[in-house]
Amino acid sequence: MNNELKSYIAGFLDGDGSIHVRIKPNLTYKYGFQISPNIVFYQSMKESSYMRWIQKKLKVGYLRERKDGIIELTIGDRKSLLWLIDEITPYLKLKKSQAKLMKTILLTQKDVKTAKDFLQLCKKIDSFEKLNYSKKRKYNSLYVEKILKKEGLLTP
Amino acid sequence: MNNELKSYIAGFLDGDGSIHVRIKPNLTYKYGFQISPNIVFYQSMKESSYMRWIQKKLKVGYLRERKDGIIELTIGDRKSLLWLIDEITPYLKLKKSQAKLMKTILLTQKDVKTAKDFLQLCKKIDSFEKLNYSKKRKYNSLYVEKILKKEGLLTP
Repeated sequence: MNNELKSYIAGFLDGDGSIHVRIKPNLTYKYGFQISPNIVFYQSMKESSYMRWIQKKLKVGYLRERKDGIIELTIGDRKSLLWLIDEITPYLKLKKSQAKLMKTILLTQKDVKTAKDFLQLCKKIDSFEKLNYSKKRKYNSLYVEKILKKEGLLTP
Repeated sequence: MNNELKSYIAGFLDGDGSIHVRIKPNLTYKYGFQISPNIVFYQSMKESSYMRWIQKKLKVGYLRERKDGIIELTIGDRKSLLWLIDEITPYLKLKKSQAKLMKTILLTQKDVKTAKDFLQLCKKIDSFEKLNYSKKRKYNSLYVEKILKKEGLLTP
């Protein structure tokens, strides 16, 4: 992408997008939780051709039509996210901290060796709640800590 | 503004802004109606420092805090609008037609000499309803036509 396109995408994401990482209970994962990072662009379904244009430019992510008339372009895989973050972070104003934090999390995630490491990672993810003014999250590091202790994976 | 900033502003406006022209009843105006053009940027009040940053970069418009927790940056004067349209139109994707139409209206407006000219202008403004997927407007060219005829300003 050229700098003007990167800057445009950053503006669009700042205006009407989201950068977040969530913790999701998933028993097929080692510690019982999946780390789910997403960059999402939103728009009215009436503008689906525009969203396809964005997707074509980014060459990553998939489109999803919600039942409430919103179309979402979601990027969720590690490689695409790391690429996109590096491309647009210099141009982001509103969501620069979220982009940097997501990058830290994606990089830290690779080095998780123990339940303690995993819990540290979850603590980093907690910060998204404040950064994005989200409602209080059910699945946060406190919740993970309880489960890890209960399962005997973490010494109390 | 440099090209990257123009492109960023265009992306932000495409994502979370509005370009529109409205017809408002106003008896202090020659034909009984005011033409009200606006470019508006929206954001949560939590991001008011960001909105002040945008205003500082644009050097036009004024900020208004709404009661529903939204802060608006509104540009409404002819000179600022014409400047902003010329700066960002090449970078707009979603709202390029609205920007071009607003420019046409602002330029045509200066040449309105008769009630017939004014009605033609109002017909151009009607197009915003479709472009912006607005709800049906009460004050459209049909309404203006009725009033102008009633006032004897337009020969039936």
